[in-house]
Amino acid sequence: MIQLSFTIALKYEIAQQPADFVFNILAARTPCQTVISENLSFEPAIPDGVHTDAVCGNFFTRVRAAPGTLQVRYEATVDIDHHREPPGMIEEVPIANIPPDVLGFIYPSRYCQSDRLLRLAAREFGHLRPGYWRVQAIRDWVMARTAFTPGSSNTTTSALDTIVEQVGVCRDFTHLMIALCRALNIPARFVTGIDYGAAVELGLPDFHAYVEVYLGNRWYSFDPTGITAPMGLVRIGTGRDAADVAFATMFGAVRSFPPVISITALDDPANGYFLPTHSQNALSSSAVGGY
Amino acid sequence: MIQLSFTIALKYEIAQQPADFVFNILAARTPCQTVISENLSFEPAIPDGVHTDAVCGNFFTRVRAAPGTLQVRYEATVDIDHHREPPGMIEEVPIANIPPDVLGFIYPSRYCQSDRLLRLAAREFGHLRPGYWRVQAIRDWVMARTAFTPGSSNTTTSALDTIVEQVGVCRDFTHLMIALCRALNIPARFVTGIDYGAAVELGLPDFHAYVEVYLGNRWYSFDPTGITAPMGLVRIGTGRDAADVAFATMFGAVRSFPPVISITALDDPANGYFLPTHSQNALSSSAVGGY
Amino acid sequence: MIQLSFTIALKYEIAQQPADFVFNILAARTPCQTVISENLSFEPAIPDGVHTDAVCGNFFTRVRAAPGTLQVRYEATVDIDHHREPPGMIEEVPIANIPPDVLGFIYPSRYCQSDRLLRLAAREFGHLRPGYWRVQAIRDWVMARTAFTPGSSNTTTSALDTIVEQVGVCRDFTHLMIALCRALNIPARFVTGIDYGAAVELGLPDFHAYVEVYLGNRWYSFDPTGITAPMGLVRIGTGRDAADVAFATMFGAVRSFPPVISITALDDPANGYFLPTHSQNALSSSAVGGY
Amino acid sequence: MIQLSFTIALKYEIAQQPADFVFNILAARTPCQTVISENLSFEPAIPDGVHTDAVCGNFFTRVRAAPGTLQVRYEATVDIDHHREPPGMIEEVPIANIPPDVLGFIYPSRYCQSDRLLRLAAREFGHLRPGYWRVQAIRDWVMARTAFTPGSSNTTTSALDTIVEQVGVCRDFTHLMIALCRALNIPARFVTGIDYGAAVELGLPDFHAYVEVYLGNRWYSFDPTGITAPMGLVRIGTGRDAADVAFATMFGAVRSFPPVISITALDDPANGYFLPTHSQNALSSSAVGGY
Repeated sequence: MIQLSFTIALKYEIAQQPADFVFNILAARTPCQTVISENLSFEPAIPDGVHTDAVCGNFFTRVRAAPGTLQVRYEATVDIDHHREPPGMIEEVPIANIPPDVLGFIYPSRYCQSDRLLRLAAREFGHLRPGYWRVQAIRDWVMARTAFTPGSSNTTTSALDTIVEQVGVCRDFTHLMIALCRALNIPARFVTGIDYGAAVELGLPDFHAYVEVYLGNRWYSFDPTGITAPMGLVRIGTGRDAADVAFATMFGAVRSFPPVISITALDDPANGYFLPTHSQNALSSSAVGGY
Repeated sequence: MIQLSFTIALKYEIAQQPADFVFNILAARTPCQTVISENLSFEPAIPDGVHTDAVCGNFFTRVRAAPGTLQVRYEATVDIDHHREPPGMIEEVPIANIPPDVLGFIYPSRYCQSDRLLRLAAREFGHLRPGYWRVQAIRDWVMARTAFTPGSSNTTTSALDTIVEQVGVCRDFTHLMIALCRALNIPARFVTGIDYGAAVELGLPDFHAYVEVYLGNRWYSFDPTGITAPMGLVRIGTGRDAADVAFATMFGAVRSFPPVISITALDDPANGYFLPTHSQNALSSSAVGGY
Repeated sequence: MIQLSFTIALKYEIAQQPADFVFNILAARTPCQTVISENLSFEPAIPDGVHTDAVCGNFFTRVRAAPGTLQVRYEATVDIDHHREPPGMIEEVPIANIPPDVLGFIYPSRYCQSDRLLRLAAREFGHLRPGYWRVQAIRDWVMARTAFTPGSSNTTTSALDTIVEQVGVCRDFTHLMIALCRALNIPARFVTGIDYGAAVELGLPDFHAYVEVYLGNRWYSFDPTGITAPMGLVRIGTGRDAADVAFATMFGAVRSFPPVISITALDDPANGYFLPTHSQNALSSSAVGGY
Repeated sequence: MIQLSFTIALKYEIAQQPADFVFNILAARTPCQTVISENLSFEPAIPDGVHTDAVCGNFFTRVRAAPGTLQVRYEATVDIDHHREPPGMIEEVPIANIPPDVLGFIYPSRYCQSDRLLRLAAREFGHLRPGYWRVQAIRDWVMARTAFTPGSSNTTTSALDTIVEQVGVCRDFTHLMIALCRALNIPARFVTGIDYGAAVELGLPDFHAYVEVYLGNRWYSFDPTGITAPMGLVRIGTGRDAADVAFATMFGAVRSFPPVISITALDDPANGYFLPTHSQNALSSSAVGGY
């Protein structure tokens, strides 16, 4: 079991008019990821409303903030008991058997224009045996062809840009891997989280984006950037792509400051808590057939 | 009240391997649109499974067909009793009050890259009084700037192409109007249907695409092509854009034939059934706050 | 030596106003391609003016035609005595030594956005030994990854579309190969011509587009589609990309008919004329350092 | 008459291998712009070769620099005696009369995809009387719809991006205005220069990009950003778009520093030298029919 404790601190300056925010920063609840404790607070204090989306289970927090400074602080401790499976046993799911709520994740979306990648995906991966290893091959292909370069992309960059320019950040790697999976009719989705253990030289802890692919009978995690061990990821939001699960969406004249994030892992083998490591197994934080 | 009876006939040739299909051709059920009778049949007969999506209420029919010819026939009669409202009374909904399931329709999607149109939408429509008439102004702007030209676009054409090239078919008009609404934080979605009464010179009856915008407390219909009276539209599928609600999605080596569609309207004033006309009122086929 | 005789017949319907045309259909004159005879005629007869561009030597014919039918007929016989060179001897030219008039052909152009392909080109071809064989590797890469499919692209399709969608016609193959060469600072240009000996199953004889690359001290021919033997190509226009050398540019309300083209090769070995064949040598139809 | 004296200082750090540079920073020579004195120097001293392009008369300076620091300094004094013409007298040139060397400037280029803007240009400007004032209307349209925002675009941004996103820097305004002119068959080209008198709040003096349009029988200057008076512009390079006339193109591992530019104007009315002002006349720095 993994136990991760983390803090997310966000800060905004709101100009003359009140501004609306939709946050998606609460840790996901799944049969594999249990929230032991959490606290979300606003400074100044303001009422907030949380709603959960029906398809992915995201917790969206909506607030309306007055002009001035808004600080958001979220602290949580989660236990993660991944479903682990030997990769060689995990099959792709025939179209006819994909659960209805999962089917939408084979369609193209804002940043994952899979409809334009059908030939490329077929040429590169069509000859591989369907299953987990084929998806891993897609992940390796993206990682090998894309340079991780902070500042090289922006909020309009899509999978097509990344396949052409071969550079990006985690969000871009994720969009490209998703688009290639969907081009092969493999359901894939975008996940935001925070990660324990990324290389220090990549900068301060930050939100991370990675991929979940529906295989066998659940969603499995992949990190096409290769900068994290999936075992050390706390899952927050899931959606079709970055358009669905921004950690903060702002409406109004708002100035944002960089998020400040910290995370620690419990190292207590006597009680069954181990530090995240790279695993030979496929890892899932989802329920069977669900989110 | 409107009563429309229609038939949709689809035909496919499936090559050597069985192929999967997902159809989205069943008439929507809403408090305003009642299905009096319907029949969906396959020739040869094959088992089908219908599932309904949680967000939009679409009926997706999934089948697996053997090599050879597949013919699909759907016949239905629907009563449509639109919610009608004087346009001047209908307000836009503040972000804070948009229902959770509706909020996703302000985000960009595959064919509606509203994130890139923020300045353009603000310049063209930002000075207008929020409300139904502002949305109508968007609809008129799209209609005035876009030439309806069959064959001028393809399945990869998006709102950005249409704003640049100013030409398209119903799907393109719809994507552009949706993108402009979302750029102003007005929820908008893509609807497929079939229409009664489109001009004969535009060709044989076909599927139509149009827009629904969330205003006041429900979804209102707009046709940015101007070729139909919204009162004569039978609603079938709704989604973020065309990626969500293709009338047929095929998996495998399949050759498609053009759909054959016919539709008639009941003209029986004595019993309260009138032919569709252009209305001064805003029209909705949705429930309050729902789909 | 090769001798090719060909006819190009073009037909247009001009609506109510006179229309202007710029044609680029006259065979190029180079030290390697000699025009033995040629005749350009218009029906009805109209005055035409020919000008030659300073950079590439194209012959542009400008006419102004009255409403009605315009027929253009060009007949020519050319002798082609290619410069032939063993490929292994041909080096790339260092930037410092590229002739001034050639330097412009390393810059991006309308359909060849080489500036966005720097990483991709470096990854795929950067490790290869510079020279003719590296350019041949680019040609093979494009050919292997692109499906030749008439009707799959249009006049707005660019190299970026082709790298993503992996389908196109000769113009698209050509744009992609040019863009990849330029991304490696290898001058490359677009050539229009007509070809002797293309496979019959590809349809009627038509204009063809192919690539010339500046290597050693002259321009060498490559056909990334693989459908012709470069020895059987009559060179007509050269430019940065298709924007420069359309065989006809029309100004006004004009309806075009498909061009009708025929071509024959002289088979007279006794006098030194051989039919075009695939050659082991690199072929050039240019002067040293010139066009 | 205007007399401007200016200095351009460029600085580069070249890594382990020698690097090639192509500079385009020498003041243009035209019947209207006379170079009184100039000096180009390199530190360390290296041999350079200048060549002039046949179409636009640009002076390209090519050097090969060893690893280490390279500093380039160009000082010049130019007299500018603009051709001035009352705008109302200046006509557009019929296609049939456009000089051959000018004709290429109606075709689309890398950053000016005029081929996709035909309908938009016709709708916005097709009803206006052809001539200088129509071009001025295009210039005003671009200026009104585009926000001047440093850092909002990059080297891959094209006219299509700018028409959609309505933001950019001088280069983007210029590309969009050029594309719209060409969509109406009006020859237009990209000019780089340095400007006297731009508003201080826009930052330090820098290279500027602006438009020249072929009207009457010569090229006239327009600045769609509105931040300069065209009378205060020293013309350096001209080309189809930014791909042709970068002030510096680097080949190799080179780090660039921002250019340092200064400029002064001679204020000596007694000798006929006046400070640049906004003029009611159309201004040209070109010869009749030439560059």
